[in-house]
Amino acid sequence: MLTYSFADIGSDSLYEYLYKCIKNDIISRKIKPGEKLPSKRSFAKNLGISVITVENAYDQLMGEGYIYSIEKKGYYASDINADHVNGAAEAGGDIEGRRPEASSRALNEETGENAYVADYSSNRINIHQFPFTVWSKLLRECLADYREELLIKSPAGGARVLREAIANHLKAFRDLDIDPEQIIIGAGTEYLYSQIVQLLGRDKIYGVEDPGFPKTSQVYSASGANVRYIPLDNEGIDVEELERVGVQVAHISPAHQFPTGRVTPISRRYELLRWAYHSDDRYIIEDDYDSEFRLTGRPIPTLKRIDINDRVIYLNTFSKSIANTVRVSYMVLPKTLLEEYNRKMSFYSCPVPSIIQLTVARFISDGYFEKHINRLRSFYRKQRNLIIEEMRSSGMDSYARIKEEDAGLHFLLDLDIPCTDKEFTDLLGDRGVKMCAVSEYYHRPDEASMHEFVVNYSSLSEEQIKLSVKLLNETILQF
Amino acid sequence: MLTYSFADIGSDSLYEYLYKCIKNDIISRKIKPGEKLPSKRSFAKNLGISVITVENAYDQLMGEGYIYSIEKKGYYASDINADHVNGAAEAGGDIEGRRPEASSRALNEETGENAYVADYSSNRINIHQFPFTVWSKLLRECLADYREELLIKSPAGGARVLREAIANHLKAFRDLDIDPEQIIIGAGTEYLYSQIVQLLGRDKIYGVEDPGFPKTSQVYSASGANVRYIPLDNEGIDVEELERVGVQVAHISPAHQFPTGRVTPISRRYELLRWAYHSDDRYIIEDDYDSEFRLTGRPIPTLKRIDINDRVIYLNTFSKSIANTVRVSYMVLPKTLLEEYNRKMSFYSCPVPSIIQLTVARFISDGYFEKHINRLRSFYRKQRNLIIEEMRSSGMDSYARIKEEDAGLHFLLDLDIPCTDKEFTDLLGDRGVKMCAVSEYYHRPDEASMHEFVVNYSSLSEEQIKLSVKLLNETILQF
Repeated sequence: MLTYSFADIGSDSLYEYLYKCIKNDIISRKIKPGEKLPSKRSFAKNLGISVITVENAYDQLMGEGYIYSIEKKGYYASDINADHVNGAAEAGGDIEGRRPEASSRALNEETGENAYVADYSSNRINIHQFPFTVWSKLLRECLADYREELLIKSPAGGARVLREAIANHLKAFRDLDIDPEQIIIGAGTEYLYSQIVQLLGRDKIYGVEDPGFPKTSQVYSASGANVRYIPLDNEGIDVEELERVGVQVAHISPAHQFPTGRVTPISRRYELLRWAYHSDDRYIIEDDYDSEFRLTGRPIPTLKRIDINDRVIYLNTFSKSIANTVRVSYMVLPKTLLEEYNRKMSFYSCPVPSIIQLTVARFISDGYFEKHINRLRSFYRKQRNLIIEEMRSSGMDSYARIKEEDAGLHFLLDLDIPCTDKEFTDLLGDRGVKMCAVSEYYHRPDEASMHEFVVNYSSLSEEQIKLSVKLLNETILQF
Repeated sequence: MLTYSFADIGSDSLYEYLYKCIKNDIISRKIKPGEKLPSKRSFAKNLGISVITVENAYDQLMGEGYIYSIEKKGYYASDINADHVNGAAEAGGDIEGRRPEASSRALNEETGENAYVADYSSNRINIHQFPFTVWSKLLRECLADYREELLIKSPAGGARVLREAIANHLKAFRDLDIDPEQIIIGAGTEYLYSQIVQLLGRDKIYGVEDPGFPKTSQVYSASGANVRYIPLDNEGIDVEELERVGVQVAHISPAHQFPTGRVTPISRRYELLRWAYHSDDRYIIEDDYDSEFRLTGRPIPTLKRIDINDRVIYLNTFSKSIANTVRVSYMVLPKTLLEEYNRKMSFYSCPVPSIIQLTVARFISDGYFEKHINRLRSFYRKQRNLIIEEMRSSGMDSYARIKEEDAGLHFLLDLDIPCTDKEFTDLLGDRGVKMCAVSEYYHRPDEASMHEFVVNYSSLSEEQIKLSVKLLNETILQF
């Protein structure tokens, strides 16, 4: 059977390394065209690695056309022309590997999830930035230290240690004075959105930003709430429109609106609070989803910080600051809502496993979270500077403008193109770069601004940045 | 500062050991009455243990009256009479520790959550039965083996490996042929209840069992569904009543109804399926929450197994078979509902962290789950036999009947007592045993059966069983 030594693996992951070894052997014809590869299970056993690692390597090789599979038989090396390694696989039978439309694009190495050179629409974090060593260490420590505590059910709002850690963090970094009791832990913000609907009532009218983050309105609607789409102006959500359509709960992201990237200025913030204070049943949901990543200047104070009448529900997540597969988010309830929360919602079990709650708590309390955010901020600043620099040096300046690049992990690209947004993103997609237009995020497409595109750069590697900017520029020039 | 060596810790947990050391020093007056104890933080640092461990030890000492706290000052040793160590603490000031009503009962050492000798109302699993070593090993293995996979978001329904592991388990142990695509992973059954309401619609009429598990109707109502309480007869939910009140979705637990413990016989099962097949919009939710724990005879086949028209949503949880703080449950959707699920619900992120999904998958696939269930079943059978034997040998036979003891982790106790259920459980509670009457679980208390009580024995230690039966018998004889 094929065998490889992992001695020279360097910084590659196991599957990347295995993928490269097999690819090289196919190119050099050490593995002959039509030769059968070992089954995933026996190969894994032989190499002492997991089946899923082999599977990922095979998937990538198949996506790129180096190997093909015959159903119920196995995997075979393609007959490639080594001068043109990205050509379609040539073989007979029921061949899953024959995907010429995908063969000219590398699989996204970080995720294995799509077949693009780069995906500007993904708000995933860069996989290499996950604090794997510290996280594993703390998880193992918590397993060893807590034992019995791991089996004690936390209250509906979450484990006390985690709520205290978050309260201390909010005090130190957002200057918020929060009683840990006000903090409710959720399994992702989606979970909290639906808890908010249950708490405030589905008979209320919920105003969401248009354009906006699609999941917010999806969860509100799925939870049975009355949703209204409120247009934005240059400063954020339109307060007159909130008033006009009778919104009672306004869901906004003043620190960094998605997708427009706008930061709500202080004057509009006070206007929003005045709107909320005007009636007892009005609340603002401040969705602070990526405020940790303001890359230039001082952090912008939260709306919650200046909310003297306690009418803001502050919402944040560890999806970007740790990882979204950790599924931990939280909200801060106004003290005035605590009694109602306890009455209506305390029968719920906190949905986050205790081991995860305790590990996140320790990650914060032991100072790792702060260091990690600082490191991420500096990493993403470099990413942003690199992609902007690549765009400038490519000569795109005369037909492309970069906007809203200082806050959060995406910016906007305003392009002079003589076609529709869809025509452009389709053509760019065919060339291997996935990008979404701001117009796609509008509930009322007629009112959409045109030729503005969202560039999420957080998940991209340096190579992906360079190649994708080249492809982007070529696509623009094609018109 | 106080210091202890952990050399002789034996099988105690850190906090138990610390608690015992301090208690002994207070009883022996090595720590003088009124002497201030170290702050939690500095004590933890000094002993090289976590703050929460010290906190737990202090909490228990406070609960038992050995120490008291003065707000913003700290913790002090009580002036105890060593011959009567359970007496109330004596000290001045704002004393949290002065809880004479609780001082005559030991804190429940397993949980630290309540102050009863035994809690017959808790459906918690026995903490010492958690497969801690295997679980930690698998969690560490998954951390090491998966790395990148840990950061790849799973589909809304959950990670493929976990859904496959569950499908294989259901095939092997429940003889169910399930496509992994039909399995939806949730963060506890509560999460799935609300997903069901979103999937089937909150305009539908949901029928729940009366008496029944309170959270089911609480979550349905909180999710905005139309809930009707349907009475039970000796065979389970009343099908005529389902028809009469126009129920469209019936939520039942035919394997082991809570609290009555009834097992729905096959004739009623077919009657229920006929009811469901009568109209296209009818579904049955089969809540199989503790079917793994049928302690006598062969397991009863699921309703899903005989559901030829695919109208049963099967629901189960790992809360009892692993631990409820792991927060993993699942449902099996009929194939006919998959298209609708994908259309309406696939935007959701699966709420369970990937590391937990992968660990549970491995726990099942590697055969540990099966072994664990077998061990648990034999452990709980011994528990049940012990408590029944204690009851018989106490002479309770003439005024107490045990019912429905073969399935699941609770049975019923039918008592001849000349008082109301509440009078009895109040008096028993004062003596240190928490027990709930079946009548407390009725939505329509007028129709409640009287003098039936629920005995959950799964969380009790041998000592708790013996002592609590003695207290129970004394309480009955008091009337």
